[in-house]
Amino acid sequence: MVSVCLENGKVLVRNVARPRRPAGFALIRLLYGGICNTDLELQRGYYGFRGTPGHEFVGEVVEADDRRWIGQRVVGEINLACGKCAWCARGLGRHCPTRTVLGIVKQPGAFREFLTLPERNLRLVPRAITDQEAVFVEPLAAACEILDQVKIPRGATVAVLGDGKLGLLASQVLQAHGAQVHQYGRHKAKLRIAEQSGVSTRIAKKMPVAKYEFVVEATGSAEGLQQAVAMTQPRGTVVMKSTVHGLVPIDTAPVIVNEITLVGSRCGRFEPALKLLAGRKVRVDAMISEVLPLTSAPAAFRAASKPGVLKVLLHD
Amino acid sequence: MVSVCLENGKVLVRNVARPRRPAGFALIRLLYGGICNTDLELQRGYYGFRGTPGHEFVGEVVEADDRRWIGQRVVGEINLACGKCAWCARGLGRHCPTRTVLGIVKQPGAFREFLTLPERNLRLVPRAITDQEAVFVEPLAAACEILDQVKIPRGATVAVLGDGKLGLLASQVLQAHGAQVHQYGRHKAKLRIAEQSGVSTRIAKKMPVAKYEFVVEATGSAEGLQQAVAMTQPRGTVVMKSTVHGLVPIDTAPVIVNEITLVGSRCGRFEPALKLLAGRKVRVDAMISEVLPLTSAPAAFRAASKPGVLKVLLHD
Repeated sequence: MVSVCLENGKVLVRNVARPRRPAGFALIRLLYGGICNTDLELQRGYYGFRGTPGHEFVGEVVEADDRRWIGQRVVGEINLACGKCAWCARGLGRHCPTRTVLGIVKQPGAFREFLTLPERNLRLVPRAITDQEAVFVEPLAAACEILDQVKIPRGATVAVLGDGKLGLLASQVLQAHGAQVHQYGRHKAKLRIAEQSGVSTRIAKKMPVAKYEFVVEATGSAEGLQQAVAMTQPRGTVVMKSTVHGLVPIDTAPVIVNEITLVGSRCGRFEPALKLLAGRKVRVDAMISEVLPLTSAPAAFRAASKPGVLKVLLHD
Repeated sequence: MVSVCLENGKVLVRNVARPRRPAGFALIRLLYGGICNTDLELQRGYYGFRGTPGHEFVGEVVEADDRRWIGQRVVGEINLACGKCAWCARGLGRHCPTRTVLGIVKQPGAFREFLTLPERNLRLVPRAITDQEAVFVEPLAAACEILDQVKIPRGATVAVLGDGKLGLLASQVLQAHGAQVHQYGRHKAKLRIAEQSGVSTRIAKKMPVAKYEFVVEATGSAEGLQQAVAMTQPRGTVVMKSTVHGLVPIDTAPVIVNEITLVGSRCGRFEPALKLLAGRKVRVDAMISEVLPLTSAPAAFRAASKPGVLKVLLHD
């Protein structure tokens, strides 16, 4: 079967054996995978990654211990948790200290014809969600995580910095929640996608100071955090969504003087994301820039790294 | 009258006229003032400060509109707020955007024989608190602020990094609150002060990783924040108490991956601090390193900047 592989900065397409399904795992045939910025970072050698990337996917179950899964269309929670520790007991397997992570940490990813994942990680995709939309469940869950971590009242005004994939998902999630979102970005065409969900957008030029009680930093840049802090009211909250490698210089004085709270935010539960997509509350179709076969993975990774490009999908 | 003055990095003692008391203000005769790290920073030229420093003090009211204040021993809330804006209405004059700050921002400070402060900023010092102890009300209020901002359950284990003045106050406040405090520092003699309040202390050498749900960063150093983040559990909270000038480099990846919350924390309400001191829940007497007259302010500032020295007091 075809499998994408990252090796020394190169994207390779290999022919490999179909994976063996361990007990408790399902064997899943890939329908679509989505290339995330993290995949591009893995390609650049972050986390010392080597192997098959891919953690955004939708697939069809081919084999499983629980036969009810067979033939079902599924997405999968990417953190493979132990299920026994205190974190898992709290429903926070995403923080299980011995977890592996699909296509990121010690677990071959989804960019291959067949993948395996524990059955308990699977979530059924409702019919109202198309195959291509379902690929967005994972990043959309990461956007929904904001609402699990920070109490944002309905009607509150929230700034979202950045008009990349995560910024566009976050703004729509917050708008659907009932917040009044002001999204700041550099690309009119991208901002237009959020506008269709009712988000108020503006080109990031002269930025307001100490205006917002809530600011979501999703620029993907090292400068974004400073900017976010400057825009936040005293006692306000900045949600940190940009994974930036290396050290980010931050002036801690305004954080302390204005008693600002910074909240690191990563993966989220899939349930709210599935609900939003099924209810057509968040539009993701306009975010698909290209769809290419697994065998064109090198071209797909190149496309995904181009400025202006949003989501690039891979299909079997 | 004698007044301390900062000018071009120098500590000067001047003879100046007694200040005029504006309406609504009290004229206060200084009993004791305390030198804070912020005063040393002002001396180094931060905030472009020039004039009389000093924001930790206890004094006796000499003149006031409300005659009941006259003869009373008082401490004073250092933020001079407008009293009319939305922040003031919320009881958060400490964040009033047009505030001045005693001895820090556009308001001559307390290191002079007589000072003025709005009567609404005054707090009566109960008899159970000595003059010298009362100087600690302001920094102790800053330590109490942690509990106003972060919900720390009684019985929770909390790490405090740093054994400077603020670290010692924070550890004692949290211990009095009912937390189990582990204080990390570099000076046995300083840590012993916190131990007398029941705090468990340890020399900061090999630091634990991802151990604490709550970490208070009070090292006063740029490296402290990184260390604090490394010691914090997933979904845990770091309280940022160190004002460090310039940019602090921070690796945001663990903040995001472990979804850590960073809370900037500054001044606090005086009431809980007065209560703790009056109830002998926090011991500050052992933190007084030297007591010098106002006229020896240059020597007092030199002493305060020496390693190993804790609080240096000035008296009239």
